[in-house]
Amino acid sequence: MSFADASAVFGGPGRWKGEVPEGWDIFGVTNGGFLMGMATRAMAQEAVGRQLISATGSYLNPLSKGPVAIEVEVLKSGRSLSTLRATMSGDGRSLLSVTGVYAEPDRPRPDGDLVRAKPPDLPPPDECIRAMPSETAPLPPPFTGKVEVRLHPDEAALLTGAPGEDAVMRGWFRLLDGEEMDANAVVLATDALPPAIFNSPYPAGWTPTVDLTVQVRDPAPRGWLSCLFTTRFVTGGMLEEDGEIWDEDGGLVALSRQLALVAR
Amino acid sequence: MSFADASAVFGGPGRWKGEVPEGWDIFGVTNGGFLMGMATRAMAQEAVGRQLISATGSYLNPLSKGPVAIEVEVLKSGRSLSTLRATMSGDGRSLLSVTGVYAEPDRPRPDGDLVRAKPPDLPPPDECIRAMPSETAPLPPPFTGKVEVRLHPDEAALLTGAPGEDAVMRGWFRLLDGEEMDANAVVLATDALPPAIFNSPYPAGWTPTVDLTVQVRDPAPRGWLSCLFTTRFVTGGMLEEDGEIWDEDGGLVALSRQLALVAR
Repeated sequence: MSFADASAVFGGPGRWKGEVPEGWDIFGVTNGGFLMGMATRAMAQEAVGRQLISATGSYLNPLSKGPVAIEVEVLKSGRSLSTLRATMSGDGRSLLSVTGVYAEPDRPRPDGDLVRAKPPDLPPPDECIRAMPSETAPLPPPFTGKVEVRLHPDEAALLTGAPGEDAVMRGWFRLLDGEEMDANAVVLATDALPPAIFNSPYPAGWTPTVDLTVQVRDPAPRGWLSCLFTTRFVTGGMLEEDGEIWDEDGGLVALSRQLALVAR
Repeated sequence: MSFADASAVFGGPGRWKGEVPEGWDIFGVTNGGFLMGMATRAMAQEAVGRQLISATGSYLNPLSKGPVAIEVEVLKSGRSLSTLRATMSGDGRSLLSVTGVYAEPDRPRPDGDLVRAKPPDLPPPDECIRAMPSETAPLPPPFTGKVEVRLHPDEAALLTGAPGEDAVMRGWFRLLDGEEMDANAVVLATDALPPAIFNSPYPAGWTPTVDLTVQVRDPAPRGWLSCLFTTRFVTGGMLEEDGEIWDEDGGLVALSRQLALVAR
């Protein structure tokens, strides 16, 4: 089943329904990027041709799988931007609150970009290590079989048991079977690699996401996405994970930041 | 008038009222950090002793000054975290939607921090350049007189008319008259310096904030705060501004990220 089908929403306006299929989970908890991509998909239906440029989700309760409902509220529909809010619930509980900002695709833009970083240094995808679900252990989780993630050989600590020092995680991402990516898939990509903190002396463990913010700079990237995730600050039991996602031509696709709790 | 008084909220639960005083604006638009700090102050009243750890605001319409109403909704009150949502309105329009996460102050935390960065390199406050409102020009704006901001001499382009290359803005921040800072003041601090993009070859102009995310790692910092703001990616008419805020002892106080539109 494609990502688009798995995260499809029906109904609306105002109230949408979807069904989280089996297998998009980590330890029985549906991937946060998947749920948020479902919410941004619902909001996009009400943003009338506008493209997602920013989304922030706050996670409330976990869901393993099954039916969800998404209430969508248009907070503002302006000349070039629309701001919407989605509240997702399932299994009798609130799961996720997301705010999404959608922009006119042909809005006027100033000339000239400023880009003060480069895509991460990654060997070609076929020289990286593919994360695939373990049949005998909880990690890698079932979710890794639903997308294609290839980790930098130095940072596949999750697979090799030899973590590094720097809490960096680099890798390639794409959907299975050449499925084209939209902004919702970009949201998924920002939460699809193992936590960067796993590649550090910290014990790998459950690091629940509190919130996740994604800036989408390219809503229709093609080919493999190269991804860099970094955690620089673990304080007071909290960590941030910053992501940069690039396309094969070196164009910026997305920036992400999440706040997560540290495994105890 | 102190920041605490200026951003005070009354009433509740569920619905709070406040009054944005004159002078907290830039070009007649109230500072975004001020409005968000008012919203987090209202939510804190309903988070029952819990401390703000994360807030994200999406800006909907500008307000110059005057009365505001803040609707607060508790999305979840869990064992150690509460998630609330605030919707601020004023002058007959929606102004701002904020989600805030509040944590038990004495929640169990794992031992050991990881900090992979340092406070910015700044001369002492009295060797930096104080931003003060201009009496003859729109910049620096009235807002700069409500807080104490001292910019790195190399980056006071706004004041000296000699911008640099790198879209970096470093400076000190504190409240006036030794007012103690709380988490709401930390939110204010993340939006109190001039945009980093002003210190670059881009034309300085109106850069409206679309959304602002703040991770509060220290809800009661003391003394001067040293601040580093950086813009690395201006693409498609959008820019991010990442902030790091530190205390005088080198402790991390906050991380911030905003999405803003580029001046045309």
